Amino acid sequence: MAAGSVDLNADLGEGFGVWTLGDDDAMLDIVTSANVACGFHAGDPANLLTVCRAAADRGVRIGAQVSYRDLAGFGRRFIDVEPADLTADVIYQIGALAALATAAGTSVSYVKPHGALYNSIVTNRSQAHAVAAAVHAVDPSLPVLGIAGSMFFAAAEEFGLRAVPEAFADRSYRPDGKLVSRRERNAVLEDVDEIAERVISMVTHGRVDAVDGSTIPITVESVCVHGDSPGAVQIAAAVRRRLVDEGVTLAPFS
Amino acid sequence: MAAGSVDLNADLGEGFGVWTLGDDDAMLDIVTSANVACGFHAGDPANLLTVCRAAADRGVRIGAQVSYRDLAGFGRRFIDVEPADLTADVIYQIGALAALATAAGTSVSYVKPHGALYNSIVTNRSQAHAVAAAVHAVDPSLPVLGIAGSMFFAAAEEFGLRAVPEAFADRSYRPDGKLVSRRERNAVLEDVDEIAERVISMVTHGRVDAVDGSTIPITVESVCVHGDSPGAVQIAAAVRRRLVDEGVTLAPFS
Amino acid sequence: MAAGSVDLNADLGEGFGVWTLGDDDAMLDIVTSANVACGFHAGDPANLLTVCRAAADRGVRIGAQVSYRDLAGFGRRFIDVEPADLTADVIYQIGALAALATAAGTSVSYVKPHGALYNSIVTNRSQAHAVAAAVHAVDPSLPVLGIAGSMFFAAAEEFGLRAVPEAFADRSYRPDGKLVSRRERNAVLEDVDEIAERVISMVTHGRVDAVDGSTIPITVESVCVHGDSPGAVQIAAAVRRRLVDEGVTLAPFS
Amino acid sequence: MAAGSVDLNADLGEGFGVWTLGDDDAMLDIVTSANVACGFHAGDPANLLTVCRAAADRGVRIGAQVSYRDLAGFGRRFIDVEPADLTADVIYQIGALAALATAAGTSVSYVKPHGALYNSIVTNRSQAHAVAAAVHAVDPSLPVLGIAGSMFFAAAEEFGLRAVPEAFADRSYRPDGKLVSRRERNAVLEDVDEIAERVISMVTHGRVDAVDGSTIPITVESVCVHGDSPGAVQIAAAVRRRLVDEGVTLAPFS
Repeated sequence: MAAGSVDLNADLGEGFGVWTLGDDDAMLDIVTSANVACGFHAGDPANLLTVCRAAADRGVRIGAQVSYRDLAGFGRRFIDVEPADLTADVIYQIGALAALATAAGTSVSYVKPHGALYNSIVTNRSQAHAVAAAVHAVDPSLPVLGIAGSMFFAAAEEFGLRAVPEAFADRSYRPDGKLVSRRERNAVLEDVDEIAERVISMVTHGRVDAVDGSTIPITVESVCVHGDSPGAVQIAAAVRRRLVDEGVTLAPFS
Repeated sequence: MAAGSVDLNADLGEGFGVWTLGDDDAMLDIVTSANVACGFHAGDPANLLTVCRAAADRGVRIGAQVSYRDLAGFGRRFIDVEPADLTADVIYQIGALAALATAAGTSVSYVKPHGALYNSIVTNRSQAHAVAAAVHAVDPSLPVLGIAGSMFFAAAEEFGLRAVPEAFADRSYRPDGKLVSRRERNAVLEDVDEIAERVISMVTHGRVDAVDGSTIPITVESVCVHGDSPGAVQIAAAVRRRLVDEGVTLAPFS
Repeated sequence: MAAGSVDLNADLGEGFGVWTLGDDDAMLDIVTSANVACGFHAGDPANLLTVCRAAADRGVRIGAQVSYRDLAGFGRRFIDVEPADLTADVIYQIGALAALATAAGTSVSYVKPHGALYNSIVTNRSQAHAVAAAVHAVDPSLPVLGIAGSMFFAAAEEFGLRAVPEAFADRSYRPDGKLVSRRERNAVLEDVDEIAERVISMVTHGRVDAVDGSTIPITVESVCVHGDSPGAVQIAAAVRRRLVDEGVTLAPFS
Repeated sequence: MAAGSVDLNADLGEGFGVWTLGDDDAMLDIVTSANVACGFHAGDPANLLTVCRAAADRGVRIGAQVSYRDLAGFGRRFIDVEPADLTADVIYQIGALAALATAAGTSVSYVKPHGALYNSIVTNRSQAHAVAAAVHAVDPSLPVLGIAGSMFFAAAEEFGLRAVPEAFADRSYRPDGKLVSRRERNAVLEDVDEIAERVISMVTHGRVDAVDGSTIPITVESVCVHGDSPGAVQIAAAVRRRLVDEGVTLAPFS
């Protein structure tokens, strides 16, 4: 069987000033793509520059993890931003990180919305369109990372952007392919072996077990592992190890 | 006499959200270079994008007006930022504005520090170095605008940046060529004709009268007119008219 | 007929740093209650202290105009804040303004939510409850200003807070007593005489004409006039003059 | 010998949103006074309310730890704020925390400036005056915590405020009684036993060894232990234990 290749992404650079979150250095030894914060939900410039340099040193690719403007809420709260304002906010963030990446000798290779924005644009057509418009305005060749079948992917297609479907290593799926809400029990998996096993199924067989016991198809070019939960590094490392053991190549999506 | 050419610059994009400051559209009809805020002392992304588009429409060149992080103080308060943090802050700001400029079909053509940062790096060697390092890290071909003889110009030279000397249309000069502090009487000129006359002297003769009555030499490639003071548009228009009348070409510095 | 008494309120202190909005001094000569911003959607402390002093000088009562944390959006964007966080945010804001009012020799006499928060808690039960809980936690004797029949008033009642119903001088009403959305035509009235006439009808007869031509009952203890729209001062002055002419006493609600 | 009584204070509530700093719960079991952040250098309202409740539960007294407005720099960078602005900023912060304390069933009992502001007002007369003016404007009966002999204490005296002298458990002193700058080697002590021993000397004998080996007099009504350094809890616990062993009563300053 041709096991093929998959990308492994995680959120990094999510401290602010004196405050840190997660273990960026450890995660950079595991992932192939780093979704780096852009200052709106986390990430002061000095901290972001450090992360960009560390990513560049290890050959890890950088994506712009754009967000609502919400430091106090870590970008996890929906904000009813006007589309035109959201477009400008996203352009601003991509550019800010791009310059830091340049200073670190690398560049921004893709865009992945964060938190409440990520969730909103699964279904919110006008905000989805606003984010895609922003990426297109900065650089139409930048791919975006998200959920297959989302409004965001529809908008990306409209703008001619490459949309890369990702799956979540430690999240439960509903039979319709959507994520189980974090407000429900069993939304997040915690067993390391189970998580690793699921990732193998998703990546090598294109299938995952939904919460109702059914098996559903899933298209995955990148797998998202969390960087800040308890045991994050351990889970990410286990996922990587299992993929390598199965003969899957870990590499940035093309 | 070969009257030559000079650049006319002003600070623009200095509103934030619902708040506005100055008349950007009127000023864009007068100046040849727009120092556009970058969000740290003023300038929300949507507002900045609008200014970038208006500048692009008129063929006015855009510079990044970088600042300390200080919305509440409009960047007018010295902050004792560590040089490494300041470098990252400046990179971040240049990049953010550059992306907005790109989205507007134009680009950032130079960097001019704002307010207290502008004043600090006349004499503060480590902050001057930090700002020059930031410009160099983003794009070594970006010129910087500032005061001839400042620490900032020394740092710019060290990094191989082109340093463009500017003069202030409505500010009083000391015999040593420095600006009279705003805390002193007579720091700011208000008579439109006097201001226009001084600019002619500076631009065509390389001389200006200092507050003690002496005449001092001054090198000017760009003249700064204020965009937000009472009568700003009127003064800027008068300066432009007088320069044109004297046969001076208004054009961006090369 | 005993014309009785009514309160006249407006939003003030809505600048930030160098940025100003509306003419606070002129409005303070007209209104009997000033809804002063608390720093989350507008209002730096120095500016707020100045407004508190000016209100104290004129004997105008101060209310805390609490908001979502959203300077960039002026508090006009719904934010899906967790109720516990919203309660703490509102407590913080009331306390901050209360201390400034104390320093100005006066005090905070009521609470009025601002912008998107004001609108949200007409129907959003959990945020309405969170705001009422905050007011109760700071001082159960503080009245709140809002829309009769709203979730906010239900929550206020639950906490034993006095809820003071207000009407808007320049807004159109639907037949069900709700405001016509600002996104619709005719949401905002602009004719000074018409506005003044409507206020008289609301205050002295308890009736207002809805957009469909029907006449609906309305209970009004305070009339809100806008402080920042074009012609705001002129409209507010006209409303006040008409009320006085009709023999209505302008006085803070009891 | 009558060993007497001393207060033990530490900085708490210094997280922001998702970010945490130090172990507030552990420190609250050790100290008698908690310097709680007020939102300008750290401390979102929900986090602050939680800390106030935890302090109230344990009978630990709360002080307002006021700061420059500088989340990105954690209040550790000098800002050249105008005195009138600084006064308003400090009033705002005290009031905000006071309301949260009220909601938690307790109150703000004193004020202690934080970080760069603390250091600035040792020598900066106008900022020292501005802070004392703010405390006086909110409540002239509020004591302030600081360094004996500082400009801040002179200003406090001018306003009739009670000024409570504190000593630092883990900082080196110069022969003139000032702290050795953190930029120098040996500024911070790390040996737990040595720190505890010094505190005993300061509290029971009014003496401390300076870096040059000389012994200097010191007046101490409160001892500051750090809450966020590595080993902070361990050091604080050791200091408390030693004081108790020596028969010193741990109690809030009167």
